[in-house]
Amino acid sequence: MPGSATARTKKTTHKNPRRRTASPLVGNALVGQAGGPTVVINQSLVGVISAAQREKAIPRVYGARHGIMGILTDQLIDLGRQPARVLERVAQTPASALGSVRKQPKPEECERIVEAFRRHDIRYFFYIGGNDTAETALAIQAAARAAAYEMRVFHVPKTIDNDLRVTDHCPGYGSAARFVACALAGDDLDNRSLPGIKIDVIMGRHAGFLAAASALARREPDDGPHLIYLPEVDFSADRFLEDVDAVYGRLGRCVVAVSEGIHDAQGRLIIESGEKDSHGNVQLSGTGALGDLLALRVKERFGKSIRVRADTLGYLQRSFLGVVSAVDAAEARAVGREAVRAALSGKHDSGSIAIRRRPGKKYAVDYLVTPLDTVARVTRSIERAWINARGNDVEPQFLDYARPLVGKLPIVGHLENRKIVGR
Amino acid sequence: MPGSATARTKKTTHKNPRRRTASPLVGNALVGQAGGPTVVINQSLVGVISAAQREKAIPRVYGARHGIMGILTDQLIDLGRQPARVLERVAQTPASALGSVRKQPKPEECERIVEAFRRHDIRYFFYIGGNDTAETALAIQAAARAAAYEMRVFHVPKTIDNDLRVTDHCPGYGSAARFVACALAGDDLDNRSLPGIKIDVIMGRHAGFLAAASALARREPDDGPHLIYLPEVDFSADRFLEDVDAVYGRLGRCVVAVSEGIHDAQGRLIIESGEKDSHGNVQLSGTGALGDLLALRVKERFGKSIRVRADTLGYLQRSFLGVVSAVDAAEARAVGREAVRAALSGKHDSGSIAIRRRPGKKYAVDYLVTPLDTVARVTRSIERAWINARGNDVEPQFLDYARPLVGKLPIVGHLENRKIVGR
Repeated sequence: MPGSATARTKKTTHKNPRRRTASPLVGNALVGQAGGPTVVINQSLVGVISAAQREKAIPRVYGARHGIMGILTDQLIDLGRQPARVLERVAQTPASALGSVRKQPKPEECERIVEAFRRHDIRYFFYIGGNDTAETALAIQAAARAAAYEMRVFHVPKTIDNDLRVTDHCPGYGSAARFVACALAGDDLDNRSLPGIKIDVIMGRHAGFLAAASALARREPDDGPHLIYLPEVDFSADRFLEDVDAVYGRLGRCVVAVSEGIHDAQGRLIIESGEKDSHGNVQLSGTGALGDLLALRVKERFGKSIRVRADTLGYLQRSFLGVVSAVDAAEARAVGREAVRAALSGKHDSGSIAIRRRPGKKYAVDYLVTPLDTVARVTRSIERAWINARGNDVEPQFLDYARPLVGKLPIVGHLENRKIVGR
Repeated sequence: MPGSATARTKKTTHKNPRRRTASPLVGNALVGQAGGPTVVINQSLVGVISAAQREKAIPRVYGARHGIMGILTDQLIDLGRQPARVLERVAQTPASALGSVRKQPKPEECERIVEAFRRHDIRYFFYIGGNDTAETALAIQAAARAAAYEMRVFHVPKTIDNDLRVTDHCPGYGSAARFVACALAGDDLDNRSLPGIKIDVIMGRHAGFLAAASALARREPDDGPHLIYLPEVDFSADRFLEDVDAVYGRLGRCVVAVSEGIHDAQGRLIIESGEKDSHGNVQLSGTGALGDLLALRVKERFGKSIRVRADTLGYLQRSFLGVVSAVDAAEARAVGREAVRAALSGKHDSGSIAIRRRPGKKYAVDYLVTPLDTVARVTRSIERAWINARGNDVEPQFLDYARPLVGKLPIVGHLENRKIVGR
């Protein structure tokens, strides 16, 4: 799977070579990472570094510690010539090797960033992250133009939320989705062993792609999760309890996957911890509050005789060492490489790399450049047609979409001839 | 690693063959699973089934649905002749393929269980579980003796808590410890990317073996977890906050691993959710309460400017699909096989299989039979000498003990030449 994906990628870019202008812009390159890390974000970093190190027009490749924070505080690292062996190890390491940051620069800071670029002769800036990161890249590009400083600014996509527009899917999502699918598959088997009602809270503030991936855990008709709630549909506690009642009545157990971002019809989050991050977002992760609240509601309704438990999968979803989708890893590498290629092509001053899925049954992708403003700010959600009418499960179209991104899951087996001994 | 471990196991049992009596007890075998499942408990099940199916003295091999609950309700399955391919798949599947139960039988129920054995001509009972399960096996054996019903009763050890006496370690622990180590390794990298104070709550009611395994995540001197709190040492919130302050002051970040069973000097659990299970134990897992409480204390102390998060690793520790220690899997299979061998040997009416680690640097084990009452009820904890004086970390002896049980962890890499660019 990984090999073939890589091979396909190579073929794609080989088939559609972007012819370079005679003399590309000459100057150093800087790469940074921002937002929540993923287990493959360093694949993109290595994709950028190794491609940039091969370019004659790029004398030096620098890394910014903690994204734009490192530019503002002059914490730039000369990445020199990293041995291939080192780069391969870094690529396989979860989280941001350069350090990450959650920060939108003020106009004055954008000017200081451009000054730093000028000081270090940085003509290529690659910023790996989500929609907030694309917005930062856009602001920096505007500041560079205003300062009449010629440069190329590229956004390299990553997010476990899979909520960027234009692209078919985001690097980082496939591996996080694989973690969620393996977690729910195991948890459902655990719940078969000791039956009860189990609630699993999954990351995803506005988009339910990650919680929806829990459906990939199912193989048998009675496998869980039996109910899936996403932020794309208004959540009603009453309907939730009705749904749990129905499943429990039918199977004697119930596994529920819930997105952390579920909200009521007025748009109010079901849980609000009160803390907000620097983007003004309420803290949803790193607390068990939503799971505990839903478990409490279930206990109130069904009484103490039923075993009710809640787990919040938390940061493991984006950082767990060793659970990686091979396709995701290969694509994360490719978007880094493609960003360098696009920046050197002379065709684009700036842009974000997007993935386009080819038509047909066999999974294959192409890479394209999309303008920064098409991915900045506004995010994408699961289309309503991929969620069932009741709003408590996904439709097969979602499974067809997500399955190739996650890769084959470990095999599960059941005993044969399970007939009851004659009494 | 897995191959060699299996090979060593085989060699061991080959070198010390237990000679059988001329005519072993003839009758059917019954196998059951109890307590919290693990990702390798089905290895033990398959070890029992495949070994029992080869014995001429055992005409039929039955499985009890949900342990003794299935015996009491006549939910016994004829396991027939399971194809090797099916057994291999089942062995690799997390959680209890037969279903599990948490139940101590009353004396009257023990009598009914023996009646069921008589009715189905069951002469061999294999019960896979922890110390509560060994206690049940002991009670059933006593009831069989009182009813003058000749049979063999064997306990097959499993527990992620690693808290059984006599045995060097328990099947199920190595894989859960591997999960914890991979979780903390990834989480520590995540915390390097976006620095703050992170608290991870790990399973373990009385024994801290699983939380201690978080130390296996460390490779570099400043790797987390930087603090580890176990139930073996009284927990003081004031000392905890002092410790966090010291680490945060030194590194600008702090990752803490906490056992769910931490308690104060009076023995009161730091968190009590109020719910108790059928053994009278307070519910600790399946809630984020302890993590959230500790995070709140840290926020109160250090203010809102520091990023504080808590995750409760939850049931994933014992059920996650695909994270398995190869040594653990091989040993879990072996203890099932050894139980059948011991039961047929004519040397023991009953017993529990224990693992003895051979002296020397190279990891290798032997299996032995220990009386049921040596593992029932009372559990084991980490010896105090393996925990540092301050009670906030483990000593190297623990790492030497745990490392071979978990297996090699995925490789992590860091960028070279990370020098700051001249200003």
